Amino acid sequence: MAKGITKRSVDYSRWYTDVIAAAQLADYSPVKGCMVIRPTGYAIWEKMQAALDKLFKDTGHENAYFPMFIPEHFMKKEAEHVEGFAPECAVVTHGGGKELEEPLFVRPTSETIIWSMYKDWIQSYRDLPILINQWANVVRWEMRTRLFLRTTEFLWQEGHTAHATAEEAEAETKQMLEIYRIFSEEYMAVPVITGRKTEREKFAGALHTYCIEAMMQDTKALQAGTSHNLGQNFAKAFDVTFQNEAGELESVWATSWGVSTRLIGALIMTHSDDNGLVLPPKMAATPVVFVPIWASNEEMNTVLKKIDEITADWKGKFNFKIDDRNNIRPGRKFNEWEKKGIPIRIEMGPRDMETNEVVLVRRDTGEKIRLPQDNLVERILTTLETMQNDMFNKAKEFRKHNTHIVDDYEEFKQRLDNEGGFYLIHWNGKTATEEKLQEETKATIRCIPFDSPDEPGKCLITGEPSERRVLVARAY
Amino acid sequence: MAKGITKRSVDYSRWYTDVIAAAQLADYSPVKGCMVIRPTGYAIWEKMQAALDKLFKDTGHENAYFPMFIPEHFMKKEAEHVEGFAPECAVVTHGGGKELEEPLFVRPTSETIIWSMYKDWIQSYRDLPILINQWANVVRWEMRTRLFLRTTEFLWQEGHTAHATAEEAEAETKQMLEIYRIFSEEYMAVPVITGRKTEREKFAGALHTYCIEAMMQDTKALQAGTSHNLGQNFAKAFDVTFQNEAGELESVWATSWGVSTRLIGALIMTHSDDNGLVLPPKMAATPVVFVPIWASNEEMNTVLKKIDEITADWKGKFNFKIDDRNNIRPGRKFNEWEKKGIPIRIEMGPRDMETNEVVLVRRDTGEKIRLPQDNLVERILTTLETMQNDMFNKAKEFRKHNTHIVDDYEEFKQRLDNEGGFYLIHWNGKTATEEKLQEETKATIRCIPFDSPDEPGKCLITGEPSERRVLVARAY
Repeated sequence: MAKGITKRSVDYSRWYTDVIAAAQLADYSPVKGCMVIRPTGYAIWEKMQAALDKLFKDTGHENAYFPMFIPEHFMKKEAEHVEGFAPECAVVTHGGGKELEEPLFVRPTSETIIWSMYKDWIQSYRDLPILINQWANVVRWEMRTRLFLRTTEFLWQEGHTAHATAEEAEAETKQMLEIYRIFSEEYMAVPVITGRKTEREKFAGALHTYCIEAMMQDTKALQAGTSHNLGQNFAKAFDVTFQNEAGELESVWATSWGVSTRLIGALIMTHSDDNGLVLPPKMAATPVVFVPIWASNEEMNTVLKKIDEITADWKGKFNFKIDDRNNIRPGRKFNEWEKKGIPIRIEMGPRDMETNEVVLVRRDTGEKIRLPQDNLVERILTTLETMQNDMFNKAKEFRKHNTHIVDDYEEFKQRLDNEGGFYLIHWNGKTATEEKLQEETKATIRCIPFDSPDEPGKCLITGEPSERRVLVARAY
Repeated sequence: MAKGITKRSVDYSRWYTDVIAAAQLADYSPVKGCMVIRPTGYAIWEKMQAALDKLFKDTGHENAYFPMFIPEHFMKKEAEHVEGFAPECAVVTHGGGKELEEPLFVRPTSETIIWSMYKDWIQSYRDLPILINQWANVVRWEMRTRLFLRTTEFLWQEGHTAHATAEEAEAETKQMLEIYRIFSEEYMAVPVITGRKTEREKFAGALHTYCIEAMMQDTKALQAGTSHNLGQNFAKAFDVTFQNEAGELESVWATSWGVSTRLIGALIMTHSDDNGLVLPPKMAATPVVFVPIWASNEEMNTVLKKIDEITADWKGKFNFKIDDRNNIRPGRKFNEWEKKGIPIRIEMGPRDMETNEVVLVRRDTGEKIRLPQDNLVERILTTLETMQNDMFNKAKEFRKHNTHIVDDYEEFKQRLDNEGGFYLIHWNGKTATEEKLQEETKATIRCIPFDSPDEPGKCLITGEPSERRVLVARAY
């Protein structure tokens, strides 16, 4: 266990904060509910951005930028939307030393400002589809905040697309959820359940919302990304019509989808341990650190010279750092890189040089492997790949172990309190039942999983008929 | 001349707006003074970000993110700073449905919030230097706005560094200005004058400000980037001290530096022509477009098949687009890509196929070159390089032609009105004289150029002694 990091088994919530502090990922700021993302944390966000941006562009999306201020009357055009978001907005009332004629909302999400522009850009079916994404900051006033998971200002991407048909919009909504699943599982090594949100949990203004839900190490759920089919709601609110091929005027179909810096929280809570951050190789800006060991300045020079030889062919294969600081002892260096989650540490001292070996240490398992100095590149690349897979499988195994099927409400309540976890339960599909469930157990319906089979049963709460099981858990 | 684009000679200002509209770079938004950066414009910003970000990281800087809200009392801690910025701030007074206890300023720049954090991060000389950059949106309330050049919200990067000595801070300030010069000249092909701002024009809160100044095609000046030596001003305002190697407490030394989406305006106004946008190859997300020519569907298939063969080895060498739209005639495609500034257009029809040739068209000169289909990759790469150099040299030649040395105030006033341009004049170093110059001529001292030699003379306005010439022009 690392100094300064509370054990998970002692206090999970403090452990999370301690890991963030130890790895210098983020800090609370003097502005209530806002965080500072420090360089180590921001480097993870840059890795996320790069991977997602490529996935978006490979599917034909382009980036753009819309103003962060939204006139008050725009927010009010879509009834559900304003009801959902207005209460948590920050409002600018003064600018340039004067009171504004109309207050400006700092965007909590950009549907309204974007659809006010799409009105000018869309006339004919030839102008469709529009496939735009934006990387931006947004603000949602939060009472209780938690670094990365829930902050008043956060960074995200929001895709906003416009289509000629309902079918195309639905296909886009599903495609983007699938991209989020791929990103989460193949890059973050975080397994997710894909499914549909209930009416109560859907985005304010959407027809329906799809989501990916992940299990954290305390077995609580975390919503990691959402993709919304907005139907024609925003087109109608902003009067965006197009002439179809038959020459008739129709309202445009819309989607929006987003993930945020919350993903960094999901990453930490899925993989990290009592020694600090554990990063899957694909999310590490620097996946390898080389820590030399020496007892004298003479030894230092010999060891560093040898390291230059060994690492000569590493460039372009993966990023690495050589920790050649002379005023810090190796043990402290090991500890520092462990806390920061660097996937692979290579150690080499004079004794290893005699046998032409190095020691490779895996951050995820702590395993130490003696390796010949020859062909180290290949061994490192293979190990990084293995680690990426192992971390995903470990997390998936953990989720499987903690996912339960229950059909008795009392058993459910007891197990939820004792073991936590995900539960697949029958539900009658009614919002009132959903609210009752939350009131009585603090658990919510996370989603109706796509892979939930038709399976008639009785609602766990009311005994009424149910067509299939839904996913229930306590959530962040 | 392209349809919908006013000629520069007729109305330069309308030409600028028309070029932006024709290339779909940006739009005014319904929010006063705020713009929407459309995908074509944002792609340029992404090219700028990628190049600058690499230059910053290669010199040891890391990215981070700080809150965009700044408590009112922070702004007031540095006297000059609040005086300079508070009048142009947007102010949040309400959040989460309630009036805030203390108003929050939307950042016009982030020195105050960042130095409030540096106070926690810096204790000893071992914590220094801190070399942090942030990519962010900022807000400065503007009365008269112009797309890219001056908007209420804009995107930028702001570097904020902390150092143990005055010398180190000064070296950093100069290094970052040099990076801006390199980026401007070698990537944007925009020649710049480097120099120091006068006391009156320096950043509010800085010891001194260095800048790069570019000449637009109407011979007006545009400040394209600034780098500030902040001395110990912000460290003192936020009480940021460190223990030096001798064990004594000292205030930390600071710099900040930034460039913004304004650079896109500079790019447009330096290179574009009466046919629309002209992009230097290094700023084009897609430097090459291939436009096939056909008269029948049968021809279409043959031509497109040939194009696949020709472009097979282009991948990975440069980005390109094959414009295979069948419902648009080639002439309209030419026009469209011309307006969007794509550097090289390749044309090929059935007749070119008979001779195994293509036609290459340079966007900057309009020159058409017949080329054999073999080894086209090499010719395109060479042409892109030549264009990049030619565009820089053309702009430099233009600036040289429009830069004048004058020693008579009446002559200066007359020439400034008749020909515009840059003027190297003698100045007595006094702010009052600078103000008089601006009142009487609408020209300002752009900078004291680094390469201005010691040359005793008489102040153009007052006749008082002057040590060297300064650069004067009307500016954006």
